[in-house]
Amino acid sequence: MANLPSFESLVDSFAKLPGIGRKSAERMASAVLEMDEVDAKAFSEAIQNAKNNIHPCPNCGLFTENDLCFACSDPNRNHKLCIVVAKAKDADSFERIGTLNCVYHVLGGLLSPSKGIDPENLTIDALMKRIDEEGIEEVVLALNPTIEGETTALFLGHLLNENKPNVKTTRLGYGLPMGASLDYADALTLSKALEGRKSL
Amino acid sequence: MANLPSFESLVDSFAKLPGIGRKSAERMASAVLEMDEVDAKAFSEAIQNAKNNIHPCPNCGLFTENDLCFACSDPNRNHKLCIVVAKAKDADSFERIGTLNCVYHVLGGLLSPSKGIDPENLTIDALMKRIDEEGIEEVVLALNPTIEGETTALFLGHLLNENKPNVKTTRLGYGLPMGASLDYADALTLSKALEGRKSL
Repeated sequence: MANLPSFESLVDSFAKLPGIGRKSAERMASAVLEMDEVDAKAFSEAIQNAKNNIHPCPNCGLFTENDLCFACSDPNRNHKLCIVVAKAKDADSFERIGTLNCVYHVLGGLLSPSKGIDPENLTIDALMKRIDEEGIEEVVLALNPTIEGETTALFLGHLLNENKPNVKTTRLGYGLPMGASLDYADALTLSKALEGRKSL
Repeated sequence: MANLPSFESLVDSFAKLPGIGRKSAERMASAVLEMDEVDAKAFSEAIQNAKNNIHPCPNCGLFTENDLCFACSDPNRNHKLCIVVAKAKDADSFERIGTLNCVYHVLGGLLSPSKGIDPENLTIDALMKRIDEEGIEEVVLALNPTIEGETTALFLGHLLNENKPNVKTTRLGYGLPMGASLDYADALTLSKALEGRKSL
């Protein structure tokens, strides 16, 4: 599509999505040209609507179209159990379990001195305030088992144990994923699985 | 993102792109939520602009923002050599060669009785008219080496030889791709490469 500025702008936009290279972006932009008018209009409007209608819940940071998110606004949920996640979409994984019925708190990232993400950049103050105001009794730190996730969990665990001694602070268990094969398990996962072994 | 209609609509739109499953569409829609306002607006507008500004060249079917495409409107191109492609974007591959300087003709698909694509659904009449009006001397059938591509090439070759005996009709050469390894070449490609062998 030599010399088509409208096409190039569309490719540029697609290429800004995560994991989408130039080639994939071009294929998607071509697909848009071949879409019928109605679908293309719906696509364009869906982007605007999503940006206009969806905003973070002022209480916990999950995405919502209302004043409060589905968890914070639901009085039937267990507001004493709070799962702390780095990004809003991590909460989706827990919601899929279906039986948790807890509330969430979105940190907005993970501590990373190299990327300039310090405790002030995360919603830690808001979490502390929620613990007092909402009477949270257990905080589960559900952060990815990476260096940044572990650092953040250690930092938060220390902070919570120090300042909120009555709150139980836990992290997710590590070990073999269900359905995994020992053949393919890496050494670090296996050592974590051994550490976390349970009597039968 | 349970219960967010604006998010679901956006996921639906992304999932209409080729090769994008539900999971990838959700990841892309999440990325749009995390884009800044300016980028999201640009994305939405790029879709509308691409649809509004880009249309097929009335002469050959390549995409263009002007009355005629870059090839048809360029008097310095060799209008006697016409490469026939199934889809407009196939022409891009030939333009990358850089030295061809020919014109194109977009068939709009390949013959496929099972999908109900008959000769009337392709731009064959327009091609015949162009051969007369523009004085095309050679037609290169650049169609994918698939069953549908071969069928279409045979059909067109027959039609052209019959009706335009003064026009040279050719198809692309088949054989080993450059840089390929014999180890990995499939038997069909190898047999085509043998058929197309040249004396040194």
